[in-house]
Amino acid sequence: MKVNKVNYRTIWPDPDNPRIVKIIDQRRLPHEFVIEELSTVNAFARAIAEMHVRGAGLIGATAGFGFYSALVNASRDRFAEDIKNAAARLIATRPTASNLAWAIKRQQKAIATESTLDAKIAKSFATACAIADEDAEFCRRIGEHGKELIARISRQKNGKPVNILTHCNAGWLAFVDYGSATAPIYAAHNDSIDVHVWVDETRPWLQGAKLTAWELGQENVPHTLIADNTGGHLMQHGMVDLVIVGTDRTTRSGDVANKIGTYLKALAANDNNVPFYVALPSSTFDWTIRDGLKEIPIEERSADEITCISGLTENGSIETVRIAPRKTKGANYAFDVTPSRLITGLITERGITAANEQDICAMFADISPEPVAINHPDL
Amino acid sequence: MKVNKVNYRTIWPDPDNPRIVKIIDQRRLPHEFVIEELSTVNAFARAIAEMHVRGAGLIGATAGFGFYSALVNASRDRFAEDIKNAAARLIATRPTASNLAWAIKRQQKAIATESTLDAKIAKSFATACAIADEDAEFCRRIGEHGKELIARISRQKNGKPVNILTHCNAGWLAFVDYGSATAPIYAAHNDSIDVHVWVDETRPWLQGAKLTAWELGQENVPHTLIADNTGGHLMQHGMVDLVIVGTDRTTRSGDVANKIGTYLKALAANDNNVPFYVALPSSTFDWTIRDGLKEIPIEERSADEITCISGLTENGSIETVRIAPRKTKGANYAFDVTPSRLITGLITERGITAANEQDICAMFADISPEPVAINHPDL
Repeated sequence: MKVNKVNYRTIWPDPDNPRIVKIIDQRRLPHEFVIEELSTVNAFARAIAEMHVRGAGLIGATAGFGFYSALVNASRDRFAEDIKNAAARLIATRPTASNLAWAIKRQQKAIATESTLDAKIAKSFATACAIADEDAEFCRRIGEHGKELIARISRQKNGKPVNILTHCNAGWLAFVDYGSATAPIYAAHNDSIDVHVWVDETRPWLQGAKLTAWELGQENVPHTLIADNTGGHLMQHGMVDLVIVGTDRTTRSGDVANKIGTYLKALAANDNNVPFYVALPSSTFDWTIRDGLKEIPIEERSADEITCISGLTENGSIETVRIAPRKTKGANYAFDVTPSRLITGLITERGITAANEQDICAMFADISPEPVAINHPDL
Repeated sequence: MKVNKVNYRTIWPDPDNPRIVKIIDQRRLPHEFVIEELSTVNAFARAIAEMHVRGAGLIGATAGFGFYSALVNASRDRFAEDIKNAAARLIATRPTASNLAWAIKRQQKAIATESTLDAKIAKSFATACAIADEDAEFCRRIGEHGKELIARISRQKNGKPVNILTHCNAGWLAFVDYGSATAPIYAAHNDSIDVHVWVDETRPWLQGAKLTAWELGQENVPHTLIADNTGGHLMQHGMVDLVIVGTDRTTRSGDVANKIGTYLKALAANDNNVPFYVALPSSTFDWTIRDGLKEIPIEERSADEITCISGLTENGSIETVRIAPRKTKGANYAFDVTPSRLITGLITERGITAANEQDICAMFADISPEPVAINHPDL
């Protein structure tokens, strides 16, 4: 997608030296556009854990390239151990998203069939690129499928702007390109369908204010920033036609773990008969679990993200300010789980499905393992 | 309540010169404790509109003293006109809260029976003091009634901490003393009942982070600051025993307008069977309306409160930082309406009542006008 009218992806290998992988340091947006170079497992792991990159698809793609970097840098003597440690390290960077483990497993499987180190490295690079390319292509298809929902509402409203609320950033910055929740919006906008986006600022990290508002602005999509508290009021007054959010992990029954606060918007949509859709490439499915509330681990991050906020001062420097008394403790749960009963449908690269096990597994029969594989105490 | 172990109210006339009324400038909290002096209608109106003072009870009390100040400063030639303008000006400072109009009407009625200017001024001062004293006394009683709810849960939990979630600041800083939502918490804490408060930070103005966390800290009540997005997750996991919030305007049928985001917490409480109580002195009732969603005007404030945040820098200065791209527009609805169907009960100075017209009007039969007075298109 566009940055100052130039097309970018969120991650790409340097064409002159593919051992260097480039990312956009998202901590600096929207105030500065900074490209960072990664070439060690340490750097990849830190970039994910400290949120230089974030978002389901992008951390999967970053882990893919990180695994390739591990192969490049592994010691010949302790090769197997180095690779095993690197894989564990990359998976452990963030606990909630399923894309990390998904990408690493795919890499491990890919190199297992190669016998020489050079062949493993070549295969790993090709796999990392394939993960990124597929992520972009899947998001493009999500856009095409989701666009139909928006087009239908636009026709019902006789072309008046379709008001779409989104939470956090499931934009192209969260994937490799297009985004999940934003892909239908960009596709509709490019088809000259009149859309307007309510952007939840998304405390504590402010992904909405800092990233979603920025990327929609770069693409000239009309949007308005709101406090996370606002969506219910807007829905009560008929000011939201559709909610689309992303997901970091999706159970086979259609429960989704997404940025903290998503559940509250789903409740409000349900209470006001506003359609609530979750957009996702199939890489975010965790086929081994059913009950999102009981089985998805929820990351807890530093309380500093609650008590302090960074932004741009009048004189153009980025400063961090404390908003609470110095002694105040904070709790920082990064995700919540929205049960499938509150979800109108899932927008995937293969089309739109109802959020229940039967329909999901029918659509993804070739990649969803049999339910007998599930070990759930309540079943 | 206590500030650095000294007891304060939020508003009081200078004992040596009652024409000067003192308030705590709440914009400076929690970083600085600044007392401001008000002695003109302009100063009172600005203090309310620009949120030096805020909260249902306190803006009512401030309007009461502001009206007295109008009498003191009115021109003898244009007395009636000056007073009329001052009343209109004070009522117009904030559109949602009903306490403003309530306090001004009470003042107008009080001085109407006095014939001399001196007598009117004396009566107005006495009335302003009575409004403030009553507010404090009513909040104290709310504390006594609400404490019983907390004590009951504490017994059910065998003395384990009762986890109470609150939104915004309906603390003593929002009233003259004790607060509405906080009064039961302070009363329980003073009775050695183990409580812990989840404090919603309450974007955009951050009344939770800046005021509620501060006043709970000053009273040594255990509490944890959370992003507004977090409450649903906590309730899903049994980490909230009780929600208590305040209200800025309450219809005779029990709908409440409170800080934006309250409705989302009420939905989450309802979805997880968590009791959801609203604490209020009867001064926040608007007896002329039934349907909060249709009939309560919702204040829209500056988008700067969405795109910019102020706080304390490392070097101890208060700075404002921008969190969104410079071009980003924001929408800032200050309140939302929680329908009575989501409210377990109202904690008032007279006791706890169900949130429906019959029970509310039975409890307040002496002050609630007959329903025939209501002019509602849907009835």
